[in-house]
Order: sequence, then C-alpha cells, then structure tokens
Amino acid sequence: MRRDSETAASPRPRPSLAWDEGCVLAVDQRALPHDYRLLRLETVDQLVDTITSLAVRGAPAIGLAGALGVALSAHRHTSDGRTDEASVKADAARLSAARPTAVNLAWAVRRAVGRLADGPQAVLAEAMTMLEEDAAVNRAAVVRAADLVQSLVPDRPVRILTHCNTGRLATAAVGTALGAIIELHGRGRVAEVLVDETRPLLQGARLTAWELGEAGVPHRLCVDSAAAAAMARGMVDCVLVGADRIAANGDVANKIGTYGLAVAAARHGLPFVVVAPESSWDRELADGSGIVVEERDPGEVTGFAGASVAPAGAAVFNPAFDVTPADLVTAIVSEARVFRPQGSPGTSDLREVPA
Amino acid sequence: MRRDSETAASPRPRPSLAWDEGCVLAVDQRALPHDYRLLRLETVDQLVDTITSLAVRGAPAIGLAGALGVALSAHRHTSDGRTDEASVKADAARLSAARPTAVNLAWAVRRAVGRLADGPQAVLAEAMTMLEEDAAVNRAAVVRAADLVQSLVPDRPVRILTHCNTGRLATAAVGTALGAIIELHGRGRVAEVLVDETRPLLQGARLTAWELGEAGVPHRLCVDSAAAAAMARGMVDCVLVGADRIAANGDVANKIGTYGLAVAAARHGLPFVVVAPESSWDRELADGSGIVVEERDPGEVTGFAGASVAPAGAAVFNPAFDVTPADLVTAIVSEARVFRPQGSPGTSDLREVPA
Repeated sequence: MRRDSETAASPRPRPSLAWDEGCVLAVDQRALPHDYRLLRLETVDQLVDTITSLAVRGAPAIGLAGALGVALSAHRHTSDGRTDEASVKADAARLSAARPTAVNLAWAVRRAVGRLADGPQAVLAEAMTMLEEDAAVNRAAVVRAADLVQSLVPDRPVRILTHCNTGRLATAAVGTALGAIIELHGRGRVAEVLVDETRPLLQGARLTAWELGEAGVPHRLCVDSAAAAAMARGMVDCVLVGADRIAANGDVANKIGTYGLAVAAARHGLPFVVVAPESSWDRELADGSGIVVEERDPGEVTGFAGASVAPAGAAVFNPAFDVTPADLVTAIVSEARVFRPQGSPGTSDLREVPA
Repeated sequence: MRRDSETAASPRPRPSLAWDEGCVLAVDQRALPHDYRLLRLETVDQLVDTITSLAVRGAPAIGLAGALGVALSAHRHTSDGRTDEASVKADAARLSAARPTAVNLAWAVRRAVGRLADGPQAVLAEAMTMLEEDAAVNRAAVVRAADLVQSLVPDRPVRILTHCNTGRLATAAVGTALGAIIELHGRGRVAEVLVDETRPLLQGARLTAWELGEAGVPHRLCVDSAAAAAMARGMVDCVLVGADRIAANGDVANKIGTYGLAVAAARHGLPFVVVAPESSWDRELADGSGIVVEERDPGEVTGFAGASVAPAGAAVFNPAFDVTPADLVTAIVSEARVFRPQGSPGTSDLREVPA
C-alpha cells in the first residue's frame, strides 16, 4: 500500500474514494486533520484492513469500498480471460464481514458480485455506477434534508448539532447529514454548527470539524456529553445525524451517542433528523432489536493517539453503535422521501411525506 | 513545589490532602493512573495553581485545600506573633476565585478566615477540624446513600453507573457517590459499576477506574455517550453522582454530562441519586439558573492526552459543568438527610425523608 502525502494547499481529489489503474485510492481518515494522505490499495487484504482500521469509514463509503474491492479481486483473479469466481467470492465474503453493523457494505458487495459472470470489467463498471449513483443519491437527499430543516426552523439561520462524521469522507460525494449542513450553509441558513467530538475515535473533532473548516461553515467543537447541556441552554435548533442501518419501523442504528442525543432532543422539543440513503434501510429487520451492534477494541477507550488514559488492564464496554427508537426520530430523509415514523415528535399521523 | 513519587507498591497516605510541617501535601491527580505523586505545596501561588490546573479537584477537596491554603498564608504572613491580616485576606480572595462553580471553596475559605484574629495556629486548627468533619460527613452520607440504593434496588446486587470522580481523591476521606459504591461493595451488594470516562479531563478513566481497581470493585469503563445505550440495554439499575453546587430547590450543578445522564435515566425509569455534603448546598440560590458555569480552556477539548485531535484553531464550547433540574433527581443524600425534590421520579409527595 503506497501513501501519497499532499500539502494542505495542493488540490484534493474528490471523491474521497476512486479507482486508479487497477488500484483503489482512498483518503486515510486516520491521519486527518493533521495529514491529508491518499492510500493506494493494491490487494483485498489491504482494503479489508483499511475498513477494519477505520482508515475508510462511514456507511456509504465502506459500501463503495467493498464494491471496489470486489472489482480489485476480480482483476487480480482473472488471467487469460478466465475469472476464478470461487476466489473472488471468498474475497467478497471477507469484505462483507469486515464490519457487521452497516447494511450498505453487504449490499454493495453483493451487487458487485452479481456482475462477476460478465468478467472483471463488468464488475468494475458496476462499482463505478454505484459511485455515480452515490453522488446523485447524496445530492438528492441533501437538498431534501435542507428543505426539511428550513421548513422546521423557518424564521432564522439554524443552529445545528451533529455527531460523528457524515460528510464527503463518509461517502464518496457530498455526504448525508453533513452534506445537508453544507447545503444549508450555501443557502445562507446556518448560524452555527455544534460538533460532538465523538469518542472514542473522535470523528467529529478530526473529520467533521475539518470538513466544516474547509467549507467555511461557522462551528464549535464540544465533548459529547456537553450536547444535552447545549440544548438546555437554548443553543440548538435541530439535531442532524446519519445512520448505519435503519430497521423497517424506522429504528436507527448510528454511532454510539446518537441515542442519548435523541433522548435529550425529545426532552427539549427539538427536531431530530436522520439523513441516510435508501440503501441504509434493512427492510428485513422489523425493528432495531435485531441490529447487530459491533463491540470494538477496548484500547479505543483506554487510550488515544498512543497515550494510555486508564489503569492497565481496565475492562471496557465499547459498543460502536446504538439504536435510536423510531419514536424519538422526527424524520428520516433519503434521496427518495421524508419518512416520519409513527408517534415521532412533532408530527401528525402522516407516515410518509412525498417530495 | 516538590514532588515525591512513590511506587505503586508503597503504602499510600490517606487522606489525599494533609498538612505537613508548614506545607500542604496533595495527591497530584493529573499524574494518575500511571503515577502516584505527592505535591508538597509551600506557597498560596502553588496551591492556587494546583486547584486551577485540577491537580487537586472535587468540590469537597478543593474546599479543604482552600482552608489549608488560608492556614498556609497565615503562617507565611505572621512574624513576631503579628499576622498581616490584609495579605492573608488577599490570598483568601485568590483562593476563593480559583474555581467559580463549587460553593464549598468559598465557604471553606471564609470559615478559615473567620479564625484569623486568633492567629495562624487557630486557622490551621480550623482547617484540621474541617478535614475531620469532612471524614465524618463523608462516612455518614455514604452509609445513608448505600442504604437508599439498597432500598431502591432491594432484590439483587446493583449495577451502578457513575460519572467523573467522587471518591477519596475528590474529598479528603472516603468520597461521596464513589464512597457509597465502595460501601455497597463492602456489603456485597455491587454487581458491576459502569464508569463514564468523563471527557474532557477523563476523571472517570484516570481516577474512578483507579480507585475502583484499588478497592476491588468490578467495573467497566465506557465513553460518556455509551451511558444512555447501556441504560437502554438494561445494564444499569441506578445512577450515582456527586455535586458541585446544589440550589435551594434541588437543582444540581455537576460535571458536564451529568444532565444528559439524568435525562436518559428518567426515560428508563432508573433512580438518579446525588450524594453530596450539606456544604454543597447554596441556599441563597433559588434554583439552578443562578449557578455560574465555568468555561474552561479550549485545549482540553482540542487535545487528548497530549495529542492534538482537532484542526488548528478550532473554536470550542467547553463548559465544565451542567445543571440538572430537580425534577430529574430521585434523591440528594447528605450526611444529614435524604432530600427528594418535588416531582422527582418515583417519589411520593414527601419532601424530606429522615434518616
């Protein structure tokens, strides 16, 4: 795997994931905000490692990385015009299993594998189509979400609280919740964004603050546990987050901490809006109780950036996600619709609002 | 200021604050959990720095440190049997102002200054009496709180969630909420303690996990934002926290993050119990709206264990405390009583329960 460092001043490739001469290019999100590095991934092992280590993260982005990984495998396992399908399918299974919670990954890998019979170029074409679709999906969801926020807070530029990173780093295009924030900023409708740092891996501090800074959106960073206090002080008009998996009833799995924000938002009567593509919906799950929540390495909590912050050997509870029940969600916005769960705060009985 | 390092195996002095031959001894809480160091403070400047840098922290402990600081000043400003009262009072004002939120500090400094007319030995004797009283107060509050928790969760060893550090490091004796946990453990009534790491300064990870490990209490560490998810999963029976200042109506100022825990506990019908000495009550404040909340250095949030984790120059919202309204508090336990705020969860109309 080769790393290409660029200076902050050099032009940055967009999207944050790309195919380049038989390899996958990806922004190394572990190095941000201090270094902007491109990883050049030449093998499926490297790509799996990139996903499990969170160098590439964000539900849409890991899905697309998975699809590109199938293309990579198909190219590696084709010679004399014959593709070793069994090897590619074994690689695809490893890619699918790299992270368990997001539904996009398995979905995207499955879709790429579906073109395997037509050879590696067909698989790659499918992955590239998915990248383009992701950009279109992002754009449509972001515009719809911005429209919704404007209708929910019609009288002034909005003060938004967000969690984790849901911007262009988390997707291959403009992002979901953070994309909507940047869209609102483009419309002159953002007063301030309060960014949860998002322990343990600090995606808010490292990635979202960086993206907002690049986009010139006024923002302040806070520890995750200050979010409820900010709501109590009247500093927040609306909470905007992404999703890793959404059950058929509208229960939302997202980064750990999302559920607590939803509970606090409900207490303060604040809209709690989820922005996620339709591919995040897992309609086979009736509700959130069936969502597998990944528990990650204790070292993420007991240490940071190489420093140990807890007694040696401390036991840890480190769920990567939590599940927010639909009754706390004001709306789930996708490229296709605004879904308002039954009983959600501040809504009528209307279950779906057309565009 | 001299630092005496001890190995983990060496006997540790208790309490964590003491007077020793004209100096104040204090455990340096910044160095824990990896180093156990004693600071030997010879001047009021050093003591003020110790409080503002959080080397000594916890509302009861900083109150006692303030009283010992007045004794230190009185000794330094006495010669030929004459005390320069103006200089001591100026030092006392600086000590009082070292941190604004906890009421104990100003209260304790005032009480020590009250003996100034009788000379430095009288001031020291008052401070030493306060240390002894703190130990007795701690002990009484801890027994009462443990009794209450047993009555609230009568059928099994309890799973407790706690935040920040409220143990012997935060006081000069057994602590408040954490003292109650250790008391319950002594009674064989603790199944597990879930410890919030408590960003930004990680008092939970660094101090509470260390104290629980020393006391042999089963515990797991989690990021602050995982607490609500733990409640949703049924992993918590009761929340126990301390307080920095309590208004006359029972509104509680405590470490940032406490309010969000109280909101989540209320959603899950879990008892939310505050353990704090009577000296934490500020009866001149009708409610929490009058509590001054200290905003601390942005570097606490943009850095983590010495590493920069946010873009250079990122703006920050860093309140050290939040205010939990009385209606979310099941009970406030002191050395003297169990106070149940009006409208608090799971209580009758009874406002105070005698011992």
